Amino acid sequence: MRRKKQKHKSKLGFPPGSLVFTGEQKMEQVDISVFNYSETFIQEFRPKSIDEVIQLIKNSSGVIWVNIDGLHEEKSIESLCTFLDIHKLTMEDIVNVSQRPKLEEYPKYVHSVIKDITYNVDLAYFEYEQLSFLLKENILITFQERSGDVFDGLRKRIREGIGFVRKRGADYLMYALLDMVVDNYFVILENFGEKLEDLETELLENPDKNSLTKLHNIRRETLGLRRTVYPLREMVAAFEKLDEPLFSDSNKVFTRDLYDHTIKVIETVEIYRDMTSSLLDLYINSVSNKMNEVMKVLTIMTSIFIPLSFIAGVYGMNFKNMPELDHKYGYYIVLGVMAVVFVGIILYLKRRKWL
Amino acid sequence: MRRKKQKHKSKLGFPPGSLVFTGEQKMEQVDISVFNYSETFIQEFRPKSIDEVIQLIKNSSGVIWVNIDGLHEEKSIESLCTFLDIHKLTMEDIVNVSQRPKLEEYPKYVHSVIKDITYNVDLAYFEYEQLSFLLKENILITFQERSGDVFDGLRKRIREGIGFVRKRGADYLMYALLDMVVDNYFVILENFGEKLEDLETELLENPDKNSLTKLHNIRRETLGLRRTVYPLREMVAAFEKLDEPLFSDSNKVFTRDLYDHTIKVIETVEIYRDMTSSLLDLYINSVSNKMNEVMKVLTIMTSIFIPLSFIAGVYGMNFKNMPELDHKYGYYIVLGVMAVVFVGIILYLKRRKWL
Amino acid sequence: MRRKKQKHKSKLGFPPGSLVFTGEQKMEQVDISVFNYSETFIQEFRPKSIDEVIQLIKNSSGVIWVNIDGLHEEKSIESLCTFLDIHKLTMEDIVNVSQRPKLEEYPKYVHSVIKDITYNVDLAYFEYEQLSFLLKENILITFQERSGDVFDGLRKRIREGIGFVRKRGADYLMYALLDMVVDNYFVILENFGEKLEDLETELLENPDKNSLTKLHNIRRETLGLRRTVYPLREMVAAFEKLDEPLFSDSNKVFTRDLYDHTIKVIETVEIYRDMTSSLLDLYINSVSNKMNEVMKVLTIMTSIFIPLSFIAGVYGMNFKNMPELDHKYGYYIVLGVMAVVFVGIILYLKRRKWL
Amino acid sequence: MRRKKQKHKSKLGFPPGSLVFTGEQKMEQVDISVFNYSETFIQEFRPKSIDEVIQLIKNSSGVIWVNIDGLHEEKSIESLCTFLDIHKLTMEDIVNVSQRPKLEEYPKYVHSVIKDITYNVDLAYFEYEQLSFLLKENILITFQERSGDVFDGLRKRIREGIGFVRKRGADYLMYALLDMVVDNYFVILENFGEKLEDLETELLENPDKNSLTKLHNIRRETLGLRRTVYPLREMVAAFEKLDEPLFSDSNKVFTRDLYDHTIKVIETVEIYRDMTSSLLDLYINSVSNKMNEVMKVLTIMTSIFIPLSFIAGVYGMNFKNMPELDHKYGYYIVLGVMAVVFVGIILYLKRRKWL
Amino acid sequence: MRRKKQKHKSKLGFPPGSLVFTGEQKMEQVDISVFNYSETFIQEFRPKSIDEVIQLIKNSSGVIWVNIDGLHEEKSIESLCTFLDIHKLTMEDIVNVSQRPKLEEYPKYVHSVIKDITYNVDLAYFEYEQLSFLLKENILITFQERSGDVFDGLRKRIREGIGFVRKRGADYLMYALLDMVVDNYFVILENFGEKLEDLETELLENPDKNSLTKLHNIRRETLGLRRTVYPLREMVAAFEKLDEPLFSDSNKVFTRDLYDHTIKVIETVEIYRDMTSSLLDLYINSVSNKMNEVMKVLTIMTSIFIPLSFIAGVYGMNFKNMPELDHKYGYYIVLGVMAVVFVGIILYLKRRKWL
Repeated sequence: MRRKKQKHKSKLGFPPGSLVFTGEQKMEQVDISVFNYSETFIQEFRPKSIDEVIQLIKNSSGVIWVNIDGLHEEKSIESLCTFLDIHKLTMEDIVNVSQRPKLEEYPKYVHSVIKDITYNVDLAYFEYEQLSFLLKENILITFQERSGDVFDGLRKRIREGIGFVRKRGADYLMYALLDMVVDNYFVILENFGEKLEDLETELLENPDKNSLTKLHNIRRETLGLRRTVYPLREMVAAFEKLDEPLFSDSNKVFTRDLYDHTIKVIETVEIYRDMTSSLLDLYINSVSNKMNEVMKVLTIMTSIFIPLSFIAGVYGMNFKNMPELDHKYGYYIVLGVMAVVFVGIILYLKRRKWL
Repeated sequence: MRRKKQKHKSKLGFPPGSLVFTGEQKMEQVDISVFNYSETFIQEFRPKSIDEVIQLIKNSSGVIWVNIDGLHEEKSIESLCTFLDIHKLTMEDIVNVSQRPKLEEYPKYVHSVIKDITYNVDLAYFEYEQLSFLLKENILITFQERSGDVFDGLRKRIREGIGFVRKRGADYLMYALLDMVVDNYFVILENFGEKLEDLETELLENPDKNSLTKLHNIRRETLGLRRTVYPLREMVAAFEKLDEPLFSDSNKVFTRDLYDHTIKVIETVEIYRDMTSSLLDLYINSVSNKMNEVMKVLTIMTSIFIPLSFIAGVYGMNFKNMPELDHKYGYYIVLGVMAVVFVGIILYLKRRKWL
Repeated sequence: MRRKKQKHKSKLGFPPGSLVFTGEQKMEQVDISVFNYSETFIQEFRPKSIDEVIQLIKNSSGVIWVNIDGLHEEKSIESLCTFLDIHKLTMEDIVNVSQRPKLEEYPKYVHSVIKDITYNVDLAYFEYEQLSFLLKENILITFQERSGDVFDGLRKRIREGIGFVRKRGADYLMYALLDMVVDNYFVILENFGEKLEDLETELLENPDKNSLTKLHNIRRETLGLRRTVYPLREMVAAFEKLDEPLFSDSNKVFTRDLYDHTIKVIETVEIYRDMTSSLLDLYINSVSNKMNEVMKVLTIMTSIFIPLSFIAGVYGMNFKNMPELDHKYGYYIVLGVMAVVFVGIILYLKRRKWL
Repeated sequence: MRRKKQKHKSKLGFPPGSLVFTGEQKMEQVDISVFNYSETFIQEFRPKSIDEVIQLIKNSSGVIWVNIDGLHEEKSIESLCTFLDIHKLTMEDIVNVSQRPKLEEYPKYVHSVIKDITYNVDLAYFEYEQLSFLLKENILITFQERSGDVFDGLRKRIREGIGFVRKRGADYLMYALLDMVVDNYFVILENFGEKLEDLETELLENPDKNSLTKLHNIRRETLGLRRTVYPLREMVAAFEKLDEPLFSDSNKVFTRDLYDHTIKVIETVEIYRDMTSSLLDLYINSVSNKMNEVMKVLTIMTSIFIPLSFIAGVYGMNFKNMPELDHKYGYYIVLGVMAVVFVGIILYLKRRKWL
Repeated sequence: MRRKKQKHKSKLGFPPGSLVFTGEQKMEQVDISVFNYSETFIQEFRPKSIDEVIQLIKNSSGVIWVNIDGLHEEKSIESLCTFLDIHKLTMEDIVNVSQRPKLEEYPKYVHSVIKDITYNVDLAYFEYEQLSFLLKENILITFQERSGDVFDGLRKRIREGIGFVRKRGADYLMYALLDMVVDNYFVILENFGEKLEDLETELLENPDKNSLTKLHNIRRETLGLRRTVYPLREMVAAFEKLDEPLFSDSNKVFTRDLYDHTIKVIETVEIYRDMTSSLLDLYINSVSNKMNEVMKVLTIMTSIFIPLSFIAGVYGMNFKNMPELDHKYGYYIVLGVMAVVFVGIILYLKRRKWL
């Protein structure tokens, strides 16, 4: 939250279309990798600068995939985008990491934003990283906030020519990458779901004060998750509606599959939300039940001993003339009375099912 | 939950369209049965292998229904699907048992997924089994996770030529099967509804700690049920929109009936959801009422005996000069005062309707 | 609930389009009445069998209205429907009394289902009876589960030629009957509303344990009511969309009126639902307030007497050397101190507004 | 509520289109006023009977506005409507005062119903009066349940020719009247809003038992208000869609303004609803906080004096052999021990922040 | 609230289209500034009167932006609007500061209303100022309630020719201003979000009575915020749909960006709303937990000392014949019994995890 504040404050004076990186710099140096491939060949590059990338794009045939990790060098990103004839607002969105997931079609290219989620299991905390896609004919540029992603499986498939990816264009590549991000959501959701289940067990068996804080954090994370996941439906729907020449019709069937997965992700988040609210009720009731137990013990102790103490009190009075006191068996009779009262109260409490 | 995790983890590296069975294997051997029939003839087969099935399809006239129980032999399923010219993504969906209910139209065939629900009455737990349908001209292939289904009635009708099924095509057969699955939902829902009613009675009459756990489980199961049942509306609506030649217009009137049933299932689930939330309120209030009872007893006991004990305490003091103590009837007067206080407090409590 | 179970279980094996009566038989013998009328004549019949009815239909001119009370003779209903060329699925729906309210247009006839509601005021319980309408040119067939309905006013109007009914066709007759059913809903809703108001008064003035059960039952009945009433909107909308020749345009203005009434019924049910939830909050708060009262009394009694008893306890100690005990006015001084403490506590409680 | 019951019961037997006044008669005699005006002239009449009105309409040029206060003379209303060629169902709606706000377009006229709201500030109670509008070419008839309305400002503007009203037709007049009704809603809503604010202050500062009843009443009134206000959106939208010749295009811009106001009214009601639910939470928590205070005092008193009393009790025992009792400073030592215990408990309570 | 009342009361008698300023006057004198610019020149003026403004507009070439701070001089606003041929209702809306955000297209101009929000951090209170835009060809008039706005950055960009603003028309200028208002919302929302986080920390760590009031205020402010922010979606959507010649197509891409930001603002408000409701649950549970702690202490103290006091009470009785009293070690034995009881109760409480 505090971080975001600086973001927007620092942007407030700038005109629309200004490139200002709004995140915190997560890596020292921008890291670029390039894949150039077709069905028949595959080349990998590790260019040191954007100028090299531009050169590679100029000379490439087949599909070219440029992946850029690190968004803090606005200048380089601007020069690459200018070379590709990208709109100023798109450039702004690429470096402004507080975008909602979306897909925007421009006359000559497509720009899409999605969040990669990492789940910090120990702290029960989600981290979000913004991924941007620029798709233009045979060129796909991906922008990430930092290195490390879920695309290694795809890289292997490109290198080894497994599956459809080498046989199809940059549009299929973009689909495949989106699909991996969404597939990764399932893993994240399952880890989160386990956390939820652990909490459920804890609440059912032994709720304590920390349970409340845990539950609150889980609700909070679920809110953040919903915010990231809900716009996906719209985004993938826009993806489905892309037309030739940017997106070839033969790939349409895949976007439908992606849409299905997206719906499932959203449904799961919704289920988790319902479950947290169910867990909250469970917690409230557990606490209430424990309170009831405490009250019962208090009431039982009081109900038993207060009348007995009263009887003892009566015969502790110092009146001169108290015939019972002089009675030979007075003490034993009173003890007997006390026992009767005691048993009576116990029976009464038993009948009310408090014992 | 834990199971699902393995599913998706194991799929994460695979390219789209890979056949990976994601469920747990529920039977040792795949079990295949084939019906081939028209209005005039009926044949049943028990092929041992997919090759036999393919042979049967090639030689068949009339409608052919292939039912495959067990999804763990991905190779056979792949070879059957390849023979029928089914898209890779469809194959993937057939063996991936965490699909949402859906119906997808491909240029030459229809693929539909639905869940068969079993209700474990004792544990108040739903089990879900994925059913896939492939409809192509006169061929219907059904895939199930394990043997045992709700279709025996239909099989009998096919064998004996009862009803419309022998007179119509594979499209009607698919409708009839879907209809049986949805009809079975009603049975499931009624069993579940009875469980709900039992719980309601329990909550109204004698709520205890277990009631809360039961209620929580019922809410949880209702969430799972909704997730399975809600997509049906969309699925059956897609079914209604199918066109010639895959779905003959003369069968349209039946899909409308199916849609009606689906809506009723969804409404019932929604009612159950409202009822569980109503039951939760009932429980909370019962607990609160019991607490009130406990508190009342405590307050009554305390209110009666604390003042009396005080009086006794006063005359238990050891002052030399306490004239009351020497008074001949002091003791009896004090007992009298105590009686008056006692009656006064009782009357006060009666007026407040606590007694 | 238990009843429904048998219904569906008994139907599970039957093919679609089987006539199986699913209700409990509410009358011994089917009761049939026939009105045949036009602007100029009116005839009433009490046919003993369906064959007679078919004969009457064949010979009729003008509008013919056949009302059948009792659905358990599936054979007769089937033969009548076959004579009228009604689809098997419609026949099935007529005798299956767990239909949602709906209106279905078939090429040559219209089939509509609606529920007649009776309110058992004493038990605060709704009873639902299924009414089916078959409209075909000048023929209207109505099916009811048992005798007794809200149509007597209309019968009188037909006999005496009051209002539009004799001047218009079977379509207007169907509208008039639906209108009477919906009008009757208002009466039902008002009775129910009074029950709600009584409960409200009870909750505001003197809530007790039964209030909770009453409230729970009212919520439950409201759920059932919503389920019956919500589909009406769609049904009446479908009614509005009926075309010539089944429904003459000059009657359109009436269906709009019916739609208006339907919306009002639905809104009223919705209001009742909000009111029950408001009543629940009222109840919870009443209980909570009562608890507060109880606690206050407990605290007041304890706060006053516990310190006083302690003082008495101190001077009840048996130490040899306790100079106060020998003081001449010791007793009176201690009584004075007790009085001061008593007044102090009272003042403190007054300041906190607990007294 | 009880009133409504009679309404519908009394209507149940009547055919559609019967004129039955369903309200309670709020004035002894029907009161009619007529304005006849154009840009150049203005005439006012006070006709004694409907016949006079009909005569006035026949002879009028320019715009004629007939306002009828009192709906219990169904005959006169029927004869006026018959003269204007109004549909039976419209007549029925005019005298049936439980209509939802609506606007219905008939081939030759428009009929609209809206509620005028009066707020009884002392009882925090809304009263609703039904207004009907009949717009036909240059004729506007308004029906009210009783005299007294919010239209005096408009009457003055007509008389004195202020604003657009004299320059435009009966359609503009109808808009101006509707606008005044909706504008009056704002006044009503502000008064109600102040009541809400007062209650909020009360709940924050000094909630008592009456607060709950007040809050409940406010929720109830908000429910009634919503029911009256929500259909306005649809009604005004229908008003916007009216076409020439009934509604001249040059007045369209005004209906958009009216629509805006309507949305604002609905939003305000919605805000009030959210506020009442927020107030309920506030109340519940206030009560809960007070309870906590009470419990704390109880616990503090008990925790302090129960151990002290126990000590006193020990030395009140009458054993022969209790060396402490004979010790010279025994009493003072025990008093000292009591003081130490007292201070210890106080410190403990302070550390727990209960003191 | 009280303020609004006067507003509407004072307007009630006026005909539609009357200019009545409904806010409180926030500045003594109307303050006008004018920018006249094109790509090649830039002029700034500080006209003293509306007549000067009209003169400037008449003589201007390029884009002219007139900003008017202060709405209480209705006459001047009317004369400016009349000069620009603005509809009466628009004039009314400009000076009536209780408008919902909206955008209305008139045949020759566009009128838009939006709220500028200021957040009073100390009082946790939002202040709303109404901004109106009139866009007509190359003229943009902005009306504000008082001086001070978020447009200084844009003014600088105009003066120095930074960004697109000098190169494009009045339509872009209007977009840029709206964009700044919406961008400012983010700053506001972040400040508010921090307040929420502070409150969350407070509730988790040390909730007190003030927390409730704070929480209530935050809910209230969130309600107000929603009301201001929700209509933006519709407004910006209307902005996107504007056509040539009022809004040039080349600026369309910017409105899409604005729409994106608007959605994000709305989502954030929605998240805050969910968070406040989550905080309320947290508070309720914290209070409940504290109560539980208090009850436990009470119960522990009572359970320990009440039985011990009873024992002491028994041996404080004054019976002649109580052999224990004469026993040499009677006292020590009883002290021993008390110790055993004490330890027993402690162990019991430990086992129940209360200690």
